[in-house]
Amino acid sequence: MIKINTESETVKQIGFGKNRIESLSDCIFAFAMTLLVIGIEVPQDMNGFTPLLVTSTLREMLPDFVHYFIAFLLIAALWVIHHMQFHKIHYADHNLLWMTIGSLLFVALIPFSTDLVGDFPTIPLCAFIFELNLLITSALFYLQWRYATANRHLIDPAISDRVIRAGKQRAAVIPVLSAVGIVLAMAGIPWSTLVYLFAPLIFLVIHLYGHKLRGESWGF
Amino acid sequence: MIKINTESETVKQIGFGKNRIESLSDCIFAFAMTLLVIGIEVPQDMNGFTPLLVTSTLREMLPDFVHYFIAFLLIAALWVIHHMQFHKIHYADHNLLWMTIGSLLFVALIPFSTDLVGDFPTIPLCAFIFELNLLITSALFYLQWRYATANRHLIDPAISDRVIRAGKQRAAVIPVLSAVGIVLAMAGIPWSTLVYLFAPLIFLVIHLYGHKLRGESWGF
Amino acid sequence: MIKINTESETVKQIGFGKNRIESLSDCIFAFAMTLLVIGIEVPQDMNGFTPLLVTSTLREMLPDFVHYFIAFLLIAALWVIHHMQFHKIHYADHNLLWMTIGSLLFVALIPFSTDLVGDFPTIPLCAFIFELNLLITSALFYLQWRYATANRHLIDPAISDRVIRAGKQRAAVIPVLSAVGIVLAMAGIPWSTLVYLFAPLIFLVIHLYGHKLRGESWGF
Amino acid sequence: MIKINTESETVKQIGFGKNRIESLSDCIFAFAMTLLVIGIEVPQDMNGFTPLLVTSTLREMLPDFVHYFIAFLLIAALWVIHHMQFHKIHYADHNLLWMTIGSLLFVALIPFSTDLVGDFPTIPLCAFIFELNLLITSALFYLQWRYATANRHLIDPAISDRVIRAGKQRAAVIPVLSAVGIVLAMAGIPWSTLVYLFAPLIFLVIHLYGHKLRGESWGF
Repeated sequence: MIKINTESETVKQIGFGKNRIESLSDCIFAFAMTLLVIGIEVPQDMNGFTPLLVTSTLREMLPDFVHYFIAFLLIAALWVIHHMQFHKIHYADHNLLWMTIGSLLFVALIPFSTDLVGDFPTIPLCAFIFELNLLITSALFYLQWRYATANRHLIDPAISDRVIRAGKQRAAVIPVLSAVGIVLAMAGIPWSTLVYLFAPLIFLVIHLYGHKLRGESWGF
Repeated sequence: MIKINTESETVKQIGFGKNRIESLSDCIFAFAMTLLVIGIEVPQDMNGFTPLLVTSTLREMLPDFVHYFIAFLLIAALWVIHHMQFHKIHYADHNLLWMTIGSLLFVALIPFSTDLVGDFPTIPLCAFIFELNLLITSALFYLQWRYATANRHLIDPAISDRVIRAGKQRAAVIPVLSAVGIVLAMAGIPWSTLVYLFAPLIFLVIHLYGHKLRGESWGF
Repeated sequence: MIKINTESETVKQIGFGKNRIESLSDCIFAFAMTLLVIGIEVPQDMNGFTPLLVTSTLREMLPDFVHYFIAFLLIAALWVIHHMQFHKIHYADHNLLWMTIGSLLFVALIPFSTDLVGDFPTIPLCAFIFELNLLITSALFYLQWRYATANRHLIDPAISDRVIRAGKQRAAVIPVLSAVGIVLAMAGIPWSTLVYLFAPLIFLVIHLYGHKLRGESWGF
Repeated sequence: MIKINTESETVKQIGFGKNRIESLSDCIFAFAMTLLVIGIEVPQDMNGFTPLLVTSTLREMLPDFVHYFIAFLLIAALWVIHHMQFHKIHYADHNLLWMTIGSLLFVALIPFSTDLVGDFPTIPLCAFIFELNLLITSALFYLQWRYATANRHLIDPAISDRVIRAGKQRAAVIPVLSAVGIVLAMAGIPWSTLVYLFAPLIFLVIHLYGHKLRGESWGF
């Protein structure tokens, strides 16, 4: 009897191989990112089209493109956070597995809520739904990191407190921005989704500040 | 002549490398989970939309969301079962390969039957189709485990009977719930798909009971 | 400077790592299989639906389901052939890489031609397009095997002639069936796509006959 | 505490494991290639269809097919370039990671712009959008290679200047062709997308010329 690709018996008793969770996650992230483009539809009923009509139609689709860019980069940022967490996590237990599945459930909803906010960019309710979707998704990633690092039971015990804290800071950026967006949307302000444009700046500040203060990089 | 990534000659004669089956399966599972969201469509013909109209439309889409959640978590549960089985299975033969392909065929149909039951939640026929889809899919995963563990010919002979039995119990949960749902649907009861809400509870009981009784975990 | 996952320098000079080609192929195969279900659409304009109307609509969709099953299993059979070929192929050169990409181009077209033949099962032209699509795809996989095994320049030189011949026989099944289907379609016979129902039988005969004659299994 | 699949601590401090970036990229590339077919839609409202009507409809879809072929092969060529780059790149830093994500954002847009140019092949504006999409995508891959090879900080220092230069030449082909296409489109010439038909020829010349001049192959 020959074994192929089987992890050691000892590992099986403690945790769950993380590589297939990563593989499922990568697929779902990649699909969600690519499915966003489905929301940007070329109207099929443009019979008797003229170049002018096509131009004006494309101009009307501008909010779709803005939200495509925002949503793609937000999902990418969540993927980077997820990636960095699993880089440090050594094995997954039952709870972590289902937390990941739960967060993927909301990742897979992002194309829908992006479509909604891209079609109705001026209705605060649609922005609210988009921001709520991102709040739940990113909060689950935040909780996942808290859970995995609590007593260091799923990570390497040698990882320093500063690295754990930096992970929490990073994972908190999108939840906080989403909460701000939700407040703006509830106040009736349109285009509240533009708060996410601050994300790259905040990530950069955390990154540079962390480098300066800690003299170390977290993951990359 | 240099070999890359080639499994040993001996293995080739006995079984089929399982890693590409896992990779195809992960993709199909991930895709089926993400495609579910396609069933939740933002109506494109909402010209002259008002916030009120959008709100009422979203409220009408509630059954879509309920079934999105149920279907996503059921596919995830099937993926976990599939994952745990392949964790113990050491190689695949011709029969197992085609049993897996057969079950993936029905996994890929779940977005369709979810769309159907999400659009017509009160028609028992639609619930029946959804539940039949899940019954066939999950029964195939159950049979797969029976086949692989019969005489232990595709698993490690050292695996105990209790672990094999626990695998059968887990794999039987969704077929049993589907059968109950089908009976309810045939009795004309609407929303019979809600039987699946008992799944997490049953999985938890099996998990905790198994821990207590066997003093061991199965897979993770 | 630390190297991660880099194949040996020698290999780089001769061939192209095959694992990422496999990974791209698995994804495209999995998507094509899952996208088939998109062709089975629940009519969205079923306002004022009645259980009776839903039932009759589902009955009308029967050809869609038949073609979903045929197409899913055909793509799966092509994937198994592709899988078995790459199991024996040790590295890929420029030509093999582009032959694979060419065949994937036609794999990705199968959901379209399946949709076409599912919608118009009685029009021989649609069956012709479906069968032509499969003829080209499977012929490319056949040529790929011929190319890789010619002078054994991309496979292990120790592989016997009988194994190479068995690979050719298997890879020829779908091209031959497609050619038969095309002849039937050109003769104006509807439902010519049902010729593919003979595929499992033929594969089984080749498999069993090979076992008996050669006393060896090819790949699995 | 047992570690599974964790890269060495040293590596973590310098760079980011490249295998999950490859896995996400493969998925997005594969998905973009498969989604192209979604743009080729079978008209659903062909009630009272006749074989003649189906034939004429399929003839009208010819530009869709032409652009499907062009776009599929262009995405495949970009994937090959990406693949060859990551074959030589040993680790990824923060900048490279986000350059890759940026290029994937535009890869995922290609199904949209292909759909647009397939539907309106004679409107130069649509060709312009398609070519601009490809210009940006391919230019990002070009810049990525320049960045990774600058001072050889992300590649093996032993890689020769000629190999780096050959990589730049290859990566420049699609940007240059796109720029030519854009000029033609701005001059109001329809079907400017056909410039991409020169791509295989140019790649072949670079490949053969490189072999002759350098006596070495680059990657494969």
